[in-house]
Amino acid sequence: MKVTYQLIHKDKKTGARYGKVVFESENGEKQEYETPMFMPVGTQATVKTLSPEQVKATNPGIILANTYHLWLRPGEKIVKKAGGLHKFMNWNGPILTDSGGYQVFSLAHNKKKDITEEGVHFKSELNGEKLFLTPEKSIEIQNALDSDIAMSFDECPPATADKKYLKNSIERTLRWAERGKKVHKNKNQSLFGIVQGGPYEDLRKWSAIETVKLGFDGYAVGGVANDDEEKDDMYKAVEYSTPYLPEDKVRYLMGVGEPVDLVECVKRGIDIFDCVSPTRLARHGNALIWGIRSINDKNTSISDLKNSTDGIEKSIDAKNYKEKRINLKNAQFAEDFTPIEDDCDCYTCQNYTKAYIHHLIKCDEAFGKTLLSIHNIRFLIRLTEKMREAIKNDKFEEFRENFLKS
Amino acid sequence: MKVTYQLIHKDKKTGARYGKVVFESENGEKQEYETPMFMPVGTQATVKTLSPEQVKATNPGIILANTYHLWLRPGEKIVKKAGGLHKFMNWNGPILTDSGGYQVFSLAHNKKKDITEEGVHFKSELNGEKLFLTPEKSIEIQNALDSDIAMSFDECPPATADKKYLKNSIERTLRWAERGKKVHKNKNQSLFGIVQGGPYEDLRKWSAIETVKLGFDGYAVGGVANDDEEKDDMYKAVEYSTPYLPEDKVRYLMGVGEPVDLVECVKRGIDIFDCVSPTRLARHGNALIWGIRSINDKNTSISDLKNSTDGIEKSIDAKNYKEKRINLKNAQFAEDFTPIEDDCDCYTCQNYTKAYIHHLIKCDEAFGKTLLSIHNIRFLIRLTEKMREAIKNDKFEEFRENFLKS
Repeated sequence: MKVTYQLIHKDKKTGARYGKVVFESENGEKQEYETPMFMPVGTQATVKTLSPEQVKATNPGIILANTYHLWLRPGEKIVKKAGGLHKFMNWNGPILTDSGGYQVFSLAHNKKKDITEEGVHFKSELNGEKLFLTPEKSIEIQNALDSDIAMSFDECPPATADKKYLKNSIERTLRWAERGKKVHKNKNQSLFGIVQGGPYEDLRKWSAIETVKLGFDGYAVGGVANDDEEKDDMYKAVEYSTPYLPEDKVRYLMGVGEPVDLVECVKRGIDIFDCVSPTRLARHGNALIWGIRSINDKNTSISDLKNSTDGIEKSIDAKNYKEKRINLKNAQFAEDFTPIEDDCDCYTCQNYTKAYIHHLIKCDEAFGKTLLSIHNIRFLIRLTEKMREAIKNDKFEEFRENFLKS
Repeated sequence: MKVTYQLIHKDKKTGARYGKVVFESENGEKQEYETPMFMPVGTQATVKTLSPEQVKATNPGIILANTYHLWLRPGEKIVKKAGGLHKFMNWNGPILTDSGGYQVFSLAHNKKKDITEEGVHFKSELNGEKLFLTPEKSIEIQNALDSDIAMSFDECPPATADKKYLKNSIERTLRWAERGKKVHKNKNQSLFGIVQGGPYEDLRKWSAIETVKLGFDGYAVGGVANDDEEKDDMYKAVEYSTPYLPEDKVRYLMGVGEPVDLVECVKRGIDIFDCVSPTRLARHGNALIWGIRSINDKNTSISDLKNSTDGIEKSIDAKNYKEKRINLKNAQFAEDFTPIEDDCDCYTCQNYTKAYIHHLIKCDEAFGKTLLSIHNIRFLIRLTEKMREAIKNDKFEEFRENFLKS
């Protein structure tokens, strides 16, 4: 299905947008989903620990699948033979595939890669096999996967890259975007461009303007989900990019899923987000709960997220705020017969107590991870639903302030 | 809920019975389920890798939960505070709890236990803690769990026990059954007795007659699911027990779930089965498929089941037959875009191909285990549904012969 974006209402005081993404198939069938939107991630053609029906019950729009992982296993040829990704994984809603770029730059064996004008040489993290990913190859794989939205292959420079490096990198990413567009042949699939440029206003502006000139069905702001990214830099990257993106195209901030970041970046004009965090947090026993906390102690980096499994409300830096979460392994929940959140409408909170989930997590029962994944995904989707209401009523700034105070 | 059994039709040529178990709550609410029946096992208050809705979709009747495991974690007091096992695990159908006896005898730390007239001293396999389980304690725990059917605490002697040992053991088990019955106080819960006696006709007859004299709501045939049990001995144990059990009470063969055994033991008058095998097989990548194969090669023991994860149709001895199964890890399924079984009505076979499940199992994705668990449980329940039809039409023997030829 091809995607278009309808801007329905712009918040009067901020850059926040309420809109719709409309997917239309070649035979005229339509699916519509509201934005702001959070996309659950189904890395290997499955949202970890969940059935498609369980994902559907969280009321998502698009889901994301990873080109890099599916290229390695099972291979795009097998997915194509299966009739495409939708049929393979039994998902009848829209699917966005990333370009594989982020994984090449973050997951390559020993983190070694050789970036040339032609593409990136690296070794598989699974078995050390030599691999070569180019802009053309990335698009070919995504064409074969038959997702609804494909992403251009971009370089994801580290957060520490200097301005000179970034300038060369942006130029190459623009050439790669053009090369990818030329070989994009799936008429049932949209193609998005990606804006890079670190936290620099001039670079973001330049990258945005030049990417828009190439002409894509939607635009992403990239290079903000590095492990050692500063939150301030993320907000700047968005703030310096969105003014130069067309109002009639959807805007996607890649790899961002912390609640406070969703709020801050919707304010700055982003429509769509994705992140593995809700399911990853769940597999470590964590449940997101409403609100954020201000912190005055030392900053913790986003990479802490990956390993933190102990205690209540251990969290990540969000400028001066951090998300709230509880870890269900904690003994304090052994006799807590209330849901994770009293006012949450998710399947987990409607049917199970913290005591039961604590029991499942302590026993390493898979269903505990399922229940927490459902809650965490629904938590982020509810947050986007609340933001939509606030924008419709021109009350986004009030919503944001209340959220930051909560 | 209390259970009664209605014998609706007895097969004209065999001992096979078609009937109903009727559960009635104190306030008169009724639930009815047909037999023969296979009960999925929810050891730790969850059927491994499945939601209650996914279990329900396999059309089960009763499910089983393990008293021993729930006693250790989270403890029966917490389950009671939660409002009982049904509410704790969000299961509104009937639940049977075993007595804990089998686990004490098979799982105790270092397999060491001290059997006295009072009860069994042993150490927790989780942390080495000293534990003491008595008939009274087992019933108290089950009363607190508030299952619909509680089982009497019995000794489960090893398959190698001699006749003299078994005779003493049966006498003790009878005294334990009487002690348990005396302290059974949950008016919303039925209590079943257990027949022991190894493969000996005189011992089984004696155990059955004496257990029935004590008077229970249903009867189980026990001591047949030992790792080193011969299949012949299992069939004998059933054959020598059921003639002495009342026709108006349900008969349950504990811990048996291989398809050929379900058929052989329904023939010998059993109504209800349970086994962890469908979910355990699934977690190792295996799917049950219709039919059995005769074997002429060396026997493999039931204990092989626990570790076999490789290849196609590695299986367990069933006298001269073994079950059929495929292992989805096998490379031959990488491009097999057909369901596990073409004529299976389960959620997995209706929506997913072997290629997709192969991919999930190769990537160690939890949803692969979920899909295989659904298929395997539904497989056994479909088998019981087919047996019901055959009995209703007085064609059980033909069904059995066709099954053995398949």
